[in-house]
Amino acid sequence: MNTTEVILAPATSIANSFDFSNGIDGVALLVFSVIVFVQQSGFASLEAGGVQAKNVYNILLDNIVDKLICSLCWFVLGFGFAYGQSFHGFVGSSHFALTGMTIEAGLLWFFSLNFLLTSCTIVSGALAERARVEAYVAYAAVMSLVIFPFTQHWTQTWLATKFSCRYLDFAGGSTVHLIGGVAALVGCIIIKPRTGRFNSDGTTAVFRGHNIVLVATGSLQLWLGWYGFNIAPAFLQGDNRTMVAVRAAVNTTLSICGSSLTTLALLYWRTQGLDLRYTCNGILGGAVAITALAAYVEPWYAFVIGVLGGIVYVYGVDLVEWFRIDDPLEASVVHGLCSLVGLLGAGVFASAAYVEESRPAPSGICSGFAHGGNGMQLGVQLLGIIVITMLAGVVSLVLFSALQWCGYLRVERNWEIAGLDRMENAPPAYPDFVLVNGPSCVPEGAASAPKPYSPPGSTRPAWRAYLTLCPPCQCLLGIGHGSTLGTVVCKNHPCCDVIWWCHPMLTYV
Amino acid sequence: MNTTEVILAPATSIANSFDFSNGIDGVALLVFSVIVFVQQSGFASLEAGGVQAKNVYNILLDNIVDKLICSLCWFVLGFGFAYGQSFHGFVGSSHFALTGMTIEAGLLWFFSLNFLLTSCTIVSGALAERARVEAYVAYAAVMSLVIFPFTQHWTQTWLATKFSCRYLDFAGGSTVHLIGGVAALVGCIIIKPRTGRFNSDGTTAVFRGHNIVLVATGSLQLWLGWYGFNIAPAFLQGDNRTMVAVRAAVNTTLSICGSSLTTLALLYWRTQGLDLRYTCNGILGGAVAITALAAYVEPWYAFVIGVLGGIVYVYGVDLVEWFRIDDPLEASVVHGLCSLVGLLGAGVFASAAYVEESRPAPSGICSGFAHGGNGMQLGVQLLGIIVITMLAGVVSLVLFSALQWCGYLRVERNWEIAGLDRMENAPPAYPDFVLVNGPSCVPEGAASAPKPYSPPGSTRPAWRAYLTLCPPCQCLLGIGHGSTLGTVVCKNHPCCDVIWWCHPMLTYV
Amino acid sequence: MNTTEVILAPATSIANSFDFSNGIDGVALLVFSVIVFVQQSGFASLEAGGVQAKNVYNILLDNIVDKLICSLCWFVLGFGFAYGQSFHGFVGSSHFALTGMTIEAGLLWFFSLNFLLTSCTIVSGALAERARVEAYVAYAAVMSLVIFPFTQHWTQTWLATKFSCRYLDFAGGSTVHLIGGVAALVGCIIIKPRTGRFNSDGTTAVFRGHNIVLVATGSLQLWLGWYGFNIAPAFLQGDNRTMVAVRAAVNTTLSICGSSLTTLALLYWRTQGLDLRYTCNGILGGAVAITALAAYVEPWYAFVIGVLGGIVYVYGVDLVEWFRIDDPLEASVVHGLCSLVGLLGAGVFASAAYVEESRPAPSGICSGFAHGGNGMQLGVQLLGIIVITMLAGVVSLVLFSALQWCGYLRVERNWEIAGLDRMENAPPAYPDFVLVNGPSCVPEGAASAPKPYSPPGSTRPAWRAYLTLCPPCQCLLGIGHGSTLGTVVCKNHPCCDVIWWCHPMLTYV
Repeated sequence: MNTTEVILAPATSIANSFDFSNGIDGVALLVFSVIVFVQQSGFASLEAGGVQAKNVYNILLDNIVDKLICSLCWFVLGFGFAYGQSFHGFVGSSHFALTGMTIEAGLLWFFSLNFLLTSCTIVSGALAERARVEAYVAYAAVMSLVIFPFTQHWTQTWLATKFSCRYLDFAGGSTVHLIGGVAALVGCIIIKPRTGRFNSDGTTAVFRGHNIVLVATGSLQLWLGWYGFNIAPAFLQGDNRTMVAVRAAVNTTLSICGSSLTTLALLYWRTQGLDLRYTCNGILGGAVAITALAAYVEPWYAFVIGVLGGIVYVYGVDLVEWFRIDDPLEASVVHGLCSLVGLLGAGVFASAAYVEESRPAPSGICSGFAHGGNGMQLGVQLLGIIVITMLAGVVSLVLFSALQWCGYLRVERNWEIAGLDRMENAPPAYPDFVLVNGPSCVPEGAASAPKPYSPPGSTRPAWRAYLTLCPPCQCLLGIGHGSTLGTVVCKNHPCCDVIWWCHPMLTYV
Repeated sequence: MNTTEVILAPATSIANSFDFSNGIDGVALLVFSVIVFVQQSGFASLEAGGVQAKNVYNILLDNIVDKLICSLCWFVLGFGFAYGQSFHGFVGSSHFALTGMTIEAGLLWFFSLNFLLTSCTIVSGALAERARVEAYVAYAAVMSLVIFPFTQHWTQTWLATKFSCRYLDFAGGSTVHLIGGVAALVGCIIIKPRTGRFNSDGTTAVFRGHNIVLVATGSLQLWLGWYGFNIAPAFLQGDNRTMVAVRAAVNTTLSICGSSLTTLALLYWRTQGLDLRYTCNGILGGAVAITALAAYVEPWYAFVIGVLGGIVYVYGVDLVEWFRIDDPLEASVVHGLCSLVGLLGAGVFASAAYVEESRPAPSGICSGFAHGGNGMQLGVQLLGIIVITMLAGVVSLVLFSALQWCGYLRVERNWEIAGLDRMENAPPAYPDFVLVNGPSCVPEGAASAPKPYSPPGSTRPAWRAYLTLCPPCQCLLGIGHGSTLGTVVCKNHPCCDVIWWCHPMLTYV
Repeated sequence: MNTTEVILAPATSIANSFDFSNGIDGVALLVFSVIVFVQQSGFASLEAGGVQAKNVYNILLDNIVDKLICSLCWFVLGFGFAYGQSFHGFVGSSHFALTGMTIEAGLLWFFSLNFLLTSCTIVSGALAERARVEAYVAYAAVMSLVIFPFTQHWTQTWLATKFSCRYLDFAGGSTVHLIGGVAALVGCIIIKPRTGRFNSDGTTAVFRGHNIVLVATGSLQLWLGWYGFNIAPAFLQGDNRTMVAVRAAVNTTLSICGSSLTTLALLYWRTQGLDLRYTCNGILGGAVAITALAAYVEPWYAFVIGVLGGIVYVYGVDLVEWFRIDDPLEASVVHGLCSLVGLLGAGVFASAAYVEESRPAPSGICSGFAHGGNGMQLGVQLLGIIVITMLAGVVSLVLFSALQWCGYLRVERNWEIAGLDRMENAPPAYPDFVLVNGPSCVPEGAASAPKPYSPPGSTRPAWRAYLTLCPPCQCLLGIGHGSTLGTVVCKNHPCCDVIWWCHPMLTYV
């Protein structure tokens, strides 16, 4: 967040060094923070639409539960670590559980929570279709308690004051997107690709998202939410906050435009077709790219940064695939690599006058090359990127490795193929629709008035024990003839025994 | 609404006793009122996703039409009853049709309309899958003209001034959610369960919502809208409105978090699975629980109130089912029972200092037990709950009984089984998708290039007369061989004659 | 936009004649402009839900790409044409690429861009299901560079100052909706109806939208966005901007209510059924109707204007169909005809006092008939309508005729029947769902464990060359036995050879 560059009054907590006594600023910060929350339904739509129908329930569960975990952790400890009285610039040590909440602390808590929620959700896309919910919950806690708050704290303390140029990150290019992207990349590598994605004979398979409408409308909601994301920080500091907000709004629009058009053009050049999914991710790539310096550049530069973001996104996807890393929603590229464009770009394109306007400070304000600066700002940016990447990378590596080692990271292969939703014993996501893998599973005679059905004495652990996959059609079955789990058989493979799942009106107790 | 606690200047209308001369307050109230409207698409998504595919068109119709009816009724009479010059504290008597609209009257009308729309919509979920649209329209009118405005008026007149402690309800725990929940419960009881839900042999069936994505994204939109709902009332009164708004935002978040995590944990303990639908409703339960006292408690208490809300929600659902009451979307529990947590909680957790800050008044400000209050506040809360429950309950009882008696409440059994959408002669909600009950209805040979088809001379009443259900497969059919309605037959049961509905490209004139 | 009526200080650019030095106004304008952006996901939902499943990807592509094109064009030239230093009242000539961006220029650029995006998107609905993306992209550029900016400029220069009454258009009835509606009508006429819509034997076919939930929730998002659309212009001028904003909010609600209820009633009278799609479009019709005078009338008049809008919408649809014009989403009626209600209504219902409050000016403020005005205001409105219709009509006519002549406007008949999505070689929009036309296309043996499959050496142009439609079932096929494109055959018509498309897990390289 732009709090990155707030000058810290050392005798007090970071939170209390802000000033929202001007009513307009407080209200504006509150309104735009609420608008950031639009990104939550945006991400849920985008990620649900981007996975296969058999994993929809699971990804939505991830997207809802992370908000709960993050809110709780941020309340109890995280916010205090980030915005409390600094312990030698290393970690904050007050404001835990928002005791004695001032308007500054309350507003900053709510504002920064919305950024944390976005940062956390990034990783759910990277682990999609094969991670256990438990692993993702653990990750959400670590993100809220360690990675995010420490990054926040450091960018507001020593990264802002120790060097002759302050580390620049207006709205969270590093403190939200880079850490999310790094964690996503580490997660993808450790959890390994989805079964069948990269085959031993060198072939690859693409698993299509099951609903393009959710992808497109989700992207538009994210675009909208980004106006909250990049405008809100304008109201934290300065004498002319509305001007800063307007510049951020204009630049965000132009960067998105530049990135998405570039993506569209590159894909057209490559395939002679118009690719909607790439274009949607191009929107996000451009928005991520401008985040770090949304208020620090002229509009034309914002467009250029967007174009660079689009190029980085398209070739970044190739690069990740070349390494045979499977990132289902390309989160590590969109959020990780594209954020570097803006963070490094701040060393090139930032204007000291604009920085001064939005983050007034007695010293440490530099311009990028394009405005006559020397390389110092770029150096500080590089240093900040390295420090933050190390923090996010090492913590993620330890976490995901530990989860992997304990067997909590990835679901078994059978569940992955059958669909994660079945693992949670969840009811089908779309019980009234016939799915592509469904017809093979429709029980004999189901067409004539299926009856609701409860397996007798079914409790979840018992069910799990009875389940297996029908070898030829991969429909989930109860094992053994004469099982008590159901009375219908796999239509295509009667030998394969009793099937319970695919019956769409099956009762879930 | 929090106008509950506004001190009434008796010589004028309630509306004109407000003061929005400070531009920031007026703009903030307008913005957050618009954000409340996000709940309308949230409810539409949640309810559409929560019903079967055959009733989707119907529930959306309810959700759109109620807004129109409520807006009109609220304009012509309702707002005047609620906010007009008080007639002995019983009912308002001015501002009808917004004549001579001041900024206060206009802004309050728009603000409170958004709360009315939410309140009204609650009941559509409870009556889902079996009520006639006509009945729901009648209910929407009664809600807008009687239940909502009278509740509003009473909480701003005698409930606010007659007792040594004022009745506390910050953002509509009783004036929106309790009345909605009570009406939903009464409606559910009178309309009786859906066919097959509770069977005479003691078994029960669960009818799955047809789209989990709509449920989850709808819940996230409701969460977002709740920031409007609980923040907007902060800008009605007081000298430090932004601080009150911030407290409401923080508390709303924490209560949602507490409730939803509790729900998730209880369900995990019960089924060893992670239940997304319960978790989504847990979000709503927590938001409802904190509504009555969002600005009156410290953050920790808000979390505790959320936890209580989650517990009440989970066991409330059991209780309602134990009584064999069929509330398809659990509206009576989520909005009715959970609102009691906050309303009674105000007698326990409310801090007089916070009440004074957001609703300054010369007298009548008390604390709950936790802040050293005596039982008086709790007593007033109980009295208010009883009065409002009686009002909503009796009016709903009379209304729904009358509708039932006239045969306007519930659709015939055939229509219920066939799906309400067919009753309205509506085109299919998903004409391009093959539905679970669809394959039996696909006409012979349809696979090879179905042609658009218009039944000759078809007008809707004539169509209705010709319709019946195919006995074995419950596909809707025209009766009699040689009918002019169509030329395709039921694939599974050729004996059953002409089918017109299921043909997906059938023309609707 | 209401900038229509801003008094131009001739020595400066239009943009710089505004004044947002009062912080509240700037923040409010920014917030409500962001809320307008909600309409973008609203339109995307509405249009996606309103087309057939086979054209979903295409319409979403249109809806995303137009935002990119419009943003770029508006940045480079369009805004300068509209808001720059006027060249004899004909066209603006400064502010290109937002050089030297002031807060006024930046805010107006962002504000008006959101209106442009809405205006542009209108036409995508009219051309749906048969237009090439390339044609729509060309249209978006012309809209952003010519039609929209010139209309904006004229309404702020000579149409505002040359006559004894100023041309009135508060929030874009003509400058957004009329031009969009006219362009949509011209486009529909030139591109001709969809194949099969109007048949030579006099019969007509209706092509159902594939998802009613998207239509309904999209309409609710548009309703919400309209609060941004009609409220934002209140903060451009005047001494009592909040009052103007409140009046606009109330009137917008009441007009929507009047229009949608009228539509519902007319359709019930006609079919004895409740028609959700008409009701949803009735929401839009009412919102369009009030746009031109949202802040200029009393609430009762707003309701009346809504009723008139509803009537115009219902009979307008009949009229357009009577002319055998095929406008799939009725954009020309909803936006074109309904906007006339408000534009002409300003000559009848506008109150000079309200006009003065929101657009203070030394002269040129008149009332409509209902407030004692003479016919002068109506005359100016008529003149403005004619000028703007001519501009939009002629430019659209030239553009679409040229595109038609070059063969860039409409796709070939085969592609139209197969679905536009296949033309772009796009992956299927819903790969996991069985579609109505799908079963005939499921390859032999697919039920048993379909394997991901990549056509060897496939590049897009090569694919196109190999494609054709299976004559009996219209499934898209590769031509010629022994093709390298795939190994599965059309289930229904094995003679028809190799099929690649319908296989849901086919890899798209």
